Amino acid sequence: MVRIAVDAMGGDFGPYPIIEGTILALKENPNFKAILVGHKEKIQTLIPHKYNNRIEIVHAEDVIRMDEAATEALKRKESSIYKAVELVRTGEAEGVVSAGHSGATMSLATLRIGRLKNVSRPAIATLMPTYKNKKSLVLDVGANVDCKPEHLFEFGVMGEAYATAIMNVDKPKVGLLSNGEEETKGNELTKNAFTMLKSLPTFIGNVEGNNIFDGSVDVIVCDGFTGNIVLKTSEGVADAISKLMKANIKKTPIRMAGALMMKKVFRSLKKEIDYSEYGGAPLIGVKGCTIISHGKSTPKAIKNAIYQAITYIKSDINTKIEKRLEEVTPKG
Amino acid sequence: MVRIAVDAMGGDFGPYPIIEGTILALKENPNFKAILVGHKEKIQTLIPHKYNNRIEIVHAEDVIRMDEAATEALKRKESSIYKAVELVRTGEAEGVVSAGHSGATMSLATLRIGRLKNVSRPAIATLMPTYKNKKSLVLDVGANVDCKPEHLFEFGVMGEAYATAIMNVDKPKVGLLSNGEEETKGNELTKNAFTMLKSLPTFIGNVEGNNIFDGSVDVIVCDGFTGNIVLKTSEGVADAISKLMKANIKKTPIRMAGALMMKKVFRSLKKEIDYSEYGGAPLIGVKGCTIISHGKSTPKAIKNAIYQAITYIKSDINTKIEKRLEEVTPKG
Repeated sequence: MVRIAVDAMGGDFGPYPIIEGTILALKENPNFKAILVGHKEKIQTLIPHKYNNRIEIVHAEDVIRMDEAATEALKRKESSIYKAVELVRTGEAEGVVSAGHSGATMSLATLRIGRLKNVSRPAIATLMPTYKNKKSLVLDVGANVDCKPEHLFEFGVMGEAYATAIMNVDKPKVGLLSNGEEETKGNELTKNAFTMLKSLPTFIGNVEGNNIFDGSVDVIVCDGFTGNIVLKTSEGVADAISKLMKANIKKTPIRMAGALMMKKVFRSLKKEIDYSEYGGAPLIGVKGCTIISHGKSTPKAIKNAIYQAITYIKSDINTKIEKRLEEVTPKG
Repeated sequence: MVRIAVDAMGGDFGPYPIIEGTILALKENPNFKAILVGHKEKIQTLIPHKYNNRIEIVHAEDVIRMDEAATEALKRKESSIYKAVELVRTGEAEGVVSAGHSGATMSLATLRIGRLKNVSRPAIATLMPTYKNKKSLVLDVGANVDCKPEHLFEFGVMGEAYATAIMNVDKPKVGLLSNGEEETKGNELTKNAFTMLKSLPTFIGNVEGNNIFDGSVDVIVCDGFTGNIVLKTSEGVADAISKLMKANIKKTPIRMAGALMMKKVFRSLKKEIDYSEYGGAPLIGVKGCTIISHGKSTPKAIKNAIYQAITYIKSDINTKIEKRLEEVTPKG
């Protein structure tokens, strides 16, 4: 039975939504065990008795706060995230879900659990909505702000593996995010990455920002600085459109009535672009499984992050990544 | 009287929308003259007689097509964009508007008209909508894919000048686009630019992608690779939301009726985010005035681009940029 370690303390809203999400997941899926890591007494009071046999609690005194430096993480051995990651390292859990300090989670997973063979830089991958009833995967969205061409090449291979093993895309299209579609477009980094990525049969060349949302490409490769800006920009646009519409609807009763009649349209749109439906972002390229969730995760988001971890582990994606990188990495 | 040179041939849809836009502008604004550059006979047939005294035509045999290399531009002395830019260089026009090959326009403006004093890299600036009833300015959105910290510093100063002189913002807030708000966030480029930008009193530090649309910052500084991706990403998100909504509305008659009652909401939203309302993007940092318009510009977009050029010229922003850069550029 799969065991998932959950950092119960790290989220912006304390342990409640995280434990609630874990219980939701246990309720719907009888095939895994949860290990909640954090302050034992605080956690215990939030768990209904009937889940006691499927939840183990590992006590941790310390919590790394969002405003602390990620560099602290390795020294804070009593922190909930340190102990949660440690459970994966020792094999007591197969995966870890954290809504806490993402920098700390990343460093600990990379340094304590370790990288897969042939992976020099793990990447955070995130699913984005498209209007074609499918998702696209963008990586890296924040783990590596300064990249070398070979890192982008690895991201391409890891993204390809994720699309095949987890998104169930038979022949995924891998694109390189650039400022134009032509091969001549790009900055120094992407131009060099382009020549390396060309060796992948799944590589379709440069793609542009709008292609992330039009379903024309399954995997979008970029450095973590650019990827993070893409993520925040798209959140910002969606938020601005929603706010502009709301303000405009309130101007007349007819518009308000119209909006009421369209309630289900807004609801389904919200569902489409709501991060909590997605769960979290896997840190691809480390051993085991690390899912980084939003600090403001709702119980539903935590539940979906746990399911994501289970799928990740069962897909055996790590073996596939190692094998594929072995095949395509230039020898020498 | 201000004279604006317009490349009549370069747009995706040929001379018609460009000439139509020029006539619209002349109709509403009696205080400028237009110089249309392109194939004389083709242009002549599209101009109503009564505008003959306010439109001059400069014949050009050649057109640089969108799929040609920008490096060709300097050799193509008979092309419409070459000749239009040349009119600014010789002082026969104060500004140029081009919906043609943006790379060619950029190189020609930079190399033939020349840069302002203390400007090492001109930047393309674009206005973005926010939900706070104001616009924000993002630069660079494509002129310089590989930047040095001092280039970003110059963009900050030029953006500050644009916000003051043209957007009428008294004390503009200048932000550096990064992957987090904290000073420690950023890639190598932005971290170094941050330390330089700190010397500007208008600098408010790092901003994130979502801040472009929330009205919290007036000028957003980034390299041209990142800026271009931000631009295309936001277009992509807006387009995806609109397509998802349309598909969803069509599912039931009630939703369709609701949408009809909300027609004005959609119309005003469209107006808010429609590029044709904005006109074009100024290439800030070159002498004179160069406005780069979308290849698919409607007559309205061309009209607004011409007005933008007139405002740019009348604001005397170039003198302000030179003076400000003189003050803030580190000596030595």
